[in-house]
Amino acid sequence: MTLRDLIERKRDGGAITGAEWHAFARDVASGKLPDYQVSALLMAIYFRGLSSGETAALTEAMLRSGSTLGVGHLKVGRVDKHSTGGVGDKVSLVLAPLVAACGAAVPMVSGRGLGHTGGTLDKLESIPGFSTRLTLAAAATQVERVGCVIMGQTGEIAPADRKLYALRDATGTVASIPLIAASIMSKKLAEGLTGLVLDVKTGAGSFLQRLDDELRAAQEMIALGLLHRCPVVALLTNMDSPLGVACGNANEVEEAIATLKGGGPADLRELTLRLGAEMLVLGSAAADLTSARAQLEAAIEGGAGLEKLREVIEAQGGNPSTCDAPERVLPQPEVREAYAAPRDGVVQRVEPRAIGLGVTAMGGGRTTMEDRVDPAVGFLITARPGDTVRRGAPLATILARDAAGAALGRAALDGAIVIGDHPVVPLPLVSHRVTVAGVERLA
Amino acid sequence: MTLRDLIERKRDGGAITGAEWHAFARDVASGKLPDYQVSALLMAIYFRGLSSGETAALTEAMLRSGSTLGVGHLKVGRVDKHSTGGVGDKVSLVLAPLVAACGAAVPMVSGRGLGHTGGTLDKLESIPGFSTRLTLAAAATQVERVGCVIMGQTGEIAPADRKLYALRDATGTVASIPLIAASIMSKKLAEGLTGLVLDVKTGAGSFLQRLDDELRAAQEMIALGLLHRCPVVALLTNMDSPLGVACGNANEVEEAIATLKGGGPADLRELTLRLGAEMLVLGSAAADLTSARAQLEAAIEGGAGLEKLREVIEAQGGNPSTCDAPERVLPQPEVREAYAAPRDGVVQRVEPRAIGLGVTAMGGGRTTMEDRVDPAVGFLITARPGDTVRRGAPLATILARDAAGAALGRAALDGAIVIGDHPVVPLPLVSHRVTVAGVERLA
Repeated sequence: MTLRDLIERKRDGGAITGAEWHAFARDVASGKLPDYQVSALLMAIYFRGLSSGETAALTEAMLRSGSTLGVGHLKVGRVDKHSTGGVGDKVSLVLAPLVAACGAAVPMVSGRGLGHTGGTLDKLESIPGFSTRLTLAAAATQVERVGCVIMGQTGEIAPADRKLYALRDATGTVASIPLIAASIMSKKLAEGLTGLVLDVKTGAGSFLQRLDDELRAAQEMIALGLLHRCPVVALLTNMDSPLGVACGNANEVEEAIATLKGGGPADLRELTLRLGAEMLVLGSAAADLTSARAQLEAAIEGGAGLEKLREVIEAQGGNPSTCDAPERVLPQPEVREAYAAPRDGVVQRVEPRAIGLGVTAMGGGRTTMEDRVDPAVGFLITARPGDTVRRGAPLATILARDAAGAALGRAALDGAIVIGDHPVVPLPLVSHRVTVAGVERLA
Repeated sequence: MTLRDLIERKRDGGAITGAEWHAFARDVASGKLPDYQVSALLMAIYFRGLSSGETAALTEAMLRSGSTLGVGHLKVGRVDKHSTGGVGDKVSLVLAPLVAACGAAVPMVSGRGLGHTGGTLDKLESIPGFSTRLTLAAAATQVERVGCVIMGQTGEIAPADRKLYALRDATGTVASIPLIAASIMSKKLAEGLTGLVLDVKTGAGSFLQRLDDELRAAQEMIALGLLHRCPVVALLTNMDSPLGVACGNANEVEEAIATLKGGGPADLRELTLRLGAEMLVLGSAAADLTSARAQLEAAIEGGAGLEKLREVIEAQGGNPSTCDAPERVLPQPEVREAYAAPRDGVVQRVEPRAIGLGVTAMGGGRTTMEDRVDPAVGFLITARPGDTVRRGAPLATILARDAAGAALGRAALDGAIVIGDHPVVPLPLVSHRVTVAGVERLA
C-alpha cells in the first residue's frame, strides 16, 4: 500500500485503517514521506473528513510517534486545560499554579502566539530567566516535586503531529475538525493526564467561527479522551471581547499575578475558577464543583496559588521576585498613551481579532514562527461591550516601544472599539458545558 | 497574495484570477513554489473544480511557461491527434504519416506508456536508431521538410505542465477534468496547431470510466481550442477490447506497417480513417469527410502513407528497411506460444486493462517512469468479443522473453479473455462525435 493509494482512497471517501495510520505517523515522524503527498492527503481529509474510528487511530498513532511524560506512578490526578486560542487569555498563568496548589498535578505543555492570538510560553518568557524548554524527564521530575510545569512542545512529544501541523499551517488545512481534535489530543495524552478541561472559545475571536463546529470539535475530543481513560469536559466561553484588561505579554503576567493576589479583572477570575473547579473534580482533588470552587477561592485568598507560581518560576529558572513586584522585574514599555472615547455612546464591540492583530503590529506577536516577540508592548483595555461612555473618557492604555508603535496601536483600537447608540447586552462568560453525557446550556 | 491564500480561496470555492494563474505557472516552472503547497492546491482543485475562465487562464499560463513550435509561417494546416490512452492503440503510427502524405502537416508530440497503457514513443523506439528526443528547432525543420514529426515532450514545451503532471501523478489528482483539459491543451497548443482531433476512449480500458466525464473533458478541450483559434473535434471510441491484434511495442509497429500496406486489422484501419478524415478537414486538406476518407484510402493503396513513414524514420535516425521487412529489422521475442480457448463458448470480454497489465508484467511496459521497456514482448490477440470458439482453438499468441515471461502472459490472458455462453453484440467502434456544435450520436 503506497501513500498515493491512501490519498486516492481518502479522496474517494474511503477509510484508512488503524495499521495504515500507525505506519503513516511513524513515517511522517521519521521524515520518510514526501511533504507533497502528505499535504495532498491533508487536503483530501479537509474535504472528506475522518470517521471517529480514523480520528482515534490517527490520534493514537501520533501519540505513539513520540514519548510520554513519565508521571503514571504519581498518586495524585494529573489534569490540564487546553484553550482553542483567544486574545488577552492569560488564564493558564493563574490556573495552573492555583489548581496545583489545591492538590492536583498540572503538567502543562503550552504553545506560542501566532497571528492574532497570544501564547502562554511567550508571556512566561517575559519573566527574566524563565525557561520553557524542558526535556520530558526534567518535566516529570518537576511535576513530582512542585506539582506543576508549564513548558513548550518538544521533539519528544508527538513528533508526527508537529510535522503535520507545520504542513497544515502552510497548506490551508488547519480548520479541519478531526485534524484539530487529533492534534490537540495526541499532545495532551502525551502528558499522561487523568483529566482534561477544554476552554472552547466562541465568537469573533476564535478560529472556527460557528458554534456547531466548536461543539463538534469538543465532542470529538471528549470521545478521544474516553478511549484513553482521560475524561474531558469542555466549557464554551465567550471570546467576543478580550479576556481581562491586559493584552500583550509582560502586562498579562502582571494581571495574572494580580488575580492570584485576589484582584484582577472579574471575568478572568471567574473563568479561572470555573475551569479550575472542573480540573479539581477531574483530578479527584474535590468531590464536586461547589467544594472545588471553594478550595480555589481559599488558595487565592490564603496566597497558596501565588506561592505555587513562585515555585514554578524558581524551578524553571525565572526571577521569583516577579511575584512580589512584577512592575519592577518585568520589561516595561517606553511609551504609555491613554486612548480616549472619540464620541459619546455605548461600546458596541471590542473586536478581539483586531486587538490581537494590533498587539502583533506593535511587535508583541508573530506573523511567522520565526518572529521575535517584544514582551513589553500591548494594551490595557478597560472598555467593555455595553459600557456607556462620554467623549474623551479613557477606554484603554497603549503600551508601545516608541511613537510609531503607539500610532499602530491607536489605529488598531480605532478599528477594534466600536461606539454606537444601541444598548448592548453583554454575552454570558460561559454558555455551555459539554461532557460525555451531552451538551448542557448554562446561560 | 501568497500561495496559501490561493489554496484557501480555492478550498472555499473561490476563483483564481488570470494574473494569479500566470504568476503561479511561471513560479511552478522556475521551481520557486514548495511542492507541498502546490499539491494541496491541486487537491483543492480536484474537489472544487475550475471555472471555464480559470481553465482557460491556466492553459494559457502553462503554454506561456515554455516555447512553441515555430511553424506559424507554413502555408499548410498543422493538425494532430490526442488519445486519452488505450491498449493496443498504435493509431498514431499509421495516422501521422498517412495524414502528412495527404497534405496536412503533423507535428506530433507524444508520450510514453505507464501502467496498463502503452506509449507511441516506446513503440517507435523499437525501430533501431529511431530517436524521439528532438529540440523544438529540429522538429520545426523536420515538419517543414517532411511534413511530419513524432517526438517526446521536451523541457521547452509547457514546463509548468510537466512539473504539475508529475505532482498530480504522485498525489491522486490526475483524474480532474479541468486539470486534464488544461494539461493536454497547453501541450497541444505549443505545437502551433490549426486543428486537433481527440480520440476519447470509452469503456473498460480508459482512465475516466464514465461517459459523462469523457464528454465533459472533450467539451472543455473544444472550448479551450476555440479560444486559441484551434478547432477541436472529438470522437468517442470503444476501448472495451484492445485495438487491433498486436499489444506490445515492436509487434505494434509491424501491425501499423501492415496497415499502411493495405492490410492490418479492420478496426485499426477504420479508426485511422475516421480520425484522419477529421484531421484532413481541420487542416484544410480536404473539403469534407467523404473526400478526405477517399484521399486517405488512396494514400494507403498507392503507398504514399508508407513512404511518408519511411521519410519520418529516416529523418529521425531510424532504419528505413523497417518499412520493407519489419520482422527482420525489429526485435523479436525468444518465445512464441499459442494460447488456446479453455472451453467451448462465446468470447464475452477481452479486458484491455488486464491485457495492458500483462504486457507490463512481461517487461513490455512500465510501472514507474524509470522502468526500461522490452520492445519484443507482448501479445497477438485474435479473439474478439462475440466470437464463437471451440475448446483448443487459438485465441492469441504470447510473445515472451523466456518461459517465466510466457507464464506471466498466460496468467494475464486467463484473466483477460472471458468465455461464456451468452451471445455478445460487439460495441460500435465510434459512438459519438463532439464539436463546438454539440454531441452527435453516430451509432
